[in-house]
Amino acid sequence: MDWKPAPRSPRTLQAQIAGWIAERIECGDWAAGTRLPSQREFAARLGVNRSTVQNALDELKAGGLLETRRGSGVYVSGSAWNALLARSQPNWQRHIRASVHKPNRHTIRLINDSEPDPSFIRLGTGELSPDLLPVRELEASLRDLRLDARSIGYSEPLGSLRLRRALCTKLETLGIRAQPDNVCIVSGALQALQLIAVGLLEEGSTVFHEPVSYLNSVHPFQSAGMRMRPFRPDDKPLKEKLERSVRGRQSLLYTVPTLNNPTGRSWNESERRGVYEACSELRIPIIEDDVYRDLLFAPGIPPIKSLDNSGQAVYLGSLSKSLSPGLRIGWIVAPSPAAARLADVKMQTDYGSSAFSQEIAAHWLESGLYDRNAERLRGELRLRANSVEETLRETFEELADWKSPEGGFYIWLKFRDPIVDKGFFRRLLDRKILINPGYIYAPDDLHHIRLSYAYASREEMGIGLAALREEAERACLRRRG
Amino acid sequence: MDWKPAPRSPRTLQAQIAGWIAERIECGDWAAGTRLPSQREFAARLGVNRSTVQNALDELKAGGLLETRRGSGVYVSGSAWNALLARSQPNWQRHIRASVHKPNRHTIRLINDSEPDPSFIRLGTGELSPDLLPVRELEASLRDLRLDARSIGYSEPLGSLRLRRALCTKLETLGIRAQPDNVCIVSGALQALQLIAVGLLEEGSTVFHEPVSYLNSVHPFQSAGMRMRPFRPDDKPLKEKLERSVRGRQSLLYTVPTLNNPTGRSWNESERRGVYEACSELRIPIIEDDVYRDLLFAPGIPPIKSLDNSGQAVYLGSLSKSLSPGLRIGWIVAPSPAAARLADVKMQTDYGSSAFSQEIAAHWLESGLYDRNAERLRGELRLRANSVEETLRETFEELADWKSPEGGFYIWLKFRDPIVDKGFFRRLLDRKILINPGYIYAPDDLHHIRLSYAYASREEMGIGLAALREEAERACLRRRG
Repeated sequence: MDWKPAPRSPRTLQAQIAGWIAERIECGDWAAGTRLPSQREFAARLGVNRSTVQNALDELKAGGLLETRRGSGVYVSGSAWNALLARSQPNWQRHIRASVHKPNRHTIRLINDSEPDPSFIRLGTGELSPDLLPVRELEASLRDLRLDARSIGYSEPLGSLRLRRALCTKLETLGIRAQPDNVCIVSGALQALQLIAVGLLEEGSTVFHEPVSYLNSVHPFQSAGMRMRPFRPDDKPLKEKLERSVRGRQSLLYTVPTLNNPTGRSWNESERRGVYEACSELRIPIIEDDVYRDLLFAPGIPPIKSLDNSGQAVYLGSLSKSLSPGLRIGWIVAPSPAAARLADVKMQTDYGSSAFSQEIAAHWLESGLYDRNAERLRGELRLRANSVEETLRETFEELADWKSPEGGFYIWLKFRDPIVDKGFFRRLLDRKILINPGYIYAPDDLHHIRLSYAYASREEMGIGLAALREEAERACLRRRG
Repeated sequence: MDWKPAPRSPRTLQAQIAGWIAERIECGDWAAGTRLPSQREFAARLGVNRSTVQNALDELKAGGLLETRRGSGVYVSGSAWNALLARSQPNWQRHIRASVHKPNRHTIRLINDSEPDPSFIRLGTGELSPDLLPVRELEASLRDLRLDARSIGYSEPLGSLRLRRALCTKLETLGIRAQPDNVCIVSGALQALQLIAVGLLEEGSTVFHEPVSYLNSVHPFQSAGMRMRPFRPDDKPLKEKLERSVRGRQSLLYTVPTLNNPTGRSWNESERRGVYEACSELRIPIIEDDVYRDLLFAPGIPPIKSLDNSGQAVYLGSLSKSLSPGLRIGWIVAPSPAAARLADVKMQTDYGSSAFSQEIAAHWLESGLYDRNAERLRGELRLRANSVEETLRETFEELADWKSPEGGFYIWLKFRDPIVDKGFFRRLLDRKILINPGYIYAPDDLHHIRLSYAYASREEMGIGLAALREEAERACLRRRG
């Protein structure tokens, strides 16, 4: 028992202790029937008052996690939920546990747990800073919303027709011809991937993705039991390489070809065409995740989907990066039978997305509010990118390399030395600096971090980058002995 | 090929034909490589013009489902999506196919497909009629919404703290003491059941439910591979009966003890206590689905959860029945480790519920708008119930029995003769009358239908009940020879 509560945490000592005990029980460390140390012993080990321990234990007894046995002390109770929590694991996690790199998983968990704590500076967060969200404009737009009874009842499986029509108009500007029955509204692109995993693939299917990939940090396909295989758009010969890995199995290819997460890179036209043609010949469906497109600083290369005249590609978009993640609105563009299948799976999961979010989204797209907001965002993100790059040029020139971002949120910062390991992450975490290390996107990567200029304030970014540089310099010194 | 397009359908002949062909391909009837009949032959078999067939085929070729091979005709193409759709089945449906009664499944599919068609009269729909939804009030309330950046970013795993606090206040009026960390916001009660199935149970766990059960019409537990076992609150001795079925496996007990769906029945106090005590002794968690409570015409018996001082019961609520299904807002009340686990699964599925829906829900609960709306609804539903009961008394006295509803949406109408079979359902469907037959809630039931007074208008209800009576009389005559 070497854990101790943190005296300067925003959470009370009691809450920290109760939370820690609950976690021990939940993860199965302390099974039902385990006898806890006496309050005196407990208090001594944790370095707190006995009354603090007592309050924490009382809280857990009230919740059914602990029970007092008269004359013999406090035990982990054998209550129903304890038993369930200890024995069951989400089915969909079964495959992750087997397939996902362990430090990766642990780091992701630490990031998720630390992000809500406002005392952390978040250097890697893939989210717009609160002051970049159009809060007042969204609030004002609610006044212009006209609801009707049909739109606030249970949704059609594909989602609001009004929103799907507005999206078809938007898609046309990208060279994608779609009808409303090609569009399925979802709660963000992650849900789209989940629906594709359970609705279109069987266990053991092959999913191709780039070696550095967003899919290593979330696990929609891994958790459904897919085999993950790397590819690069510049692999030669690509078709033969893909073919060898498919071996008669179901397969699909996932990519973020525009403003890639985490690398920020965009494929050129010949890479897009090459992947499209290889996949077409092999009949491998393509999932094109294009959620960052509206944040391109200059007009980009059209999506792969715009090349597609045979229903080969499925296209994913979202309002989470370019308007508000709280809307939980994304979309899938697919051949109509595939769209219908995915909508059917969605209905059986959650009966569709919020009608209110869908109405707000349709209103913003139709009225031009969305486009104006995206333009403003591009401007503000470019300023932030410039400012971060300036700091990098001044203070990281010796340590690291990077490319100027072409849009979106990220700089894929490459340290010359392989210093970005778990210890590096932890040392910054201890300083209340949260980074997204490269190894959560590419398990063997020790060179990169995903730096996001979208979230931290200018001041936080200054403090964070200074700490990052200090730790990087120390790590280099240690390495070079 | 005995199918023919319906000449008086609201869909064009072309759309019907294209839809039918797509369905044949999707369901695997026509595999990739199947050669279609010539246009002439096709037109003759379907009894339509050749140009109609040609247009339908062109539509499907454009979507990639069909392809022309020069000089030899039109074939089902081997395109990527065709192959996926034909070969894959949603993983979660694997178990349903094995475990759910077939006519049940087929009837549910017909109901789901027919409900969006406004030409149907819906006698069984579990949804408020559009004119019962507080559309103007919701629209007006949007003007009073104050947003802040934190609330429209990515959500905390458990959901909006403001909403969870408002729910704790509401729960207190029901005798349930809960803290915000016991509450997890979900997109309706169905999602809650999905999360419980994947987050708390392992495959092969036992789920107890009543013999007539909502769980036979949706399949959150069956699809996750649970064994379904019946129980009745008045089984004697209940504890021993449950114990025999558990046999050391994980298990839980699901119930809608207040205004049951579909029976409308509410358990009395001793039944609630009996089930609670039996489950406590056996440490079987209880899922209490209480989504109809706010529609009780007179104050009801407190929920099972209010008896619970050991975290034995998980309580589910929702705004879908008593405010608007389009909000997609429900809640789970559970011991905090279980709530945290379910929130974690939800985050990995859809990153949380719409922030806008959560803000609207919190505003309606805090301001009293919700309570006033629920009171209005109770009044209107009671009037509707009385009116339907009047018609039943006048025209069904000879044919069927029922109990006066105590609230909610449903009358569980029992025909004296076992006439409610698939044919009965189909004959009404052909007359554009949609019923929810008892056998979708209890596979062997041929006596009941779930009649809902919440959806159809007074006029539709008159037409629908007259048709129902006619078909019922004919069925009785046929039966009695």
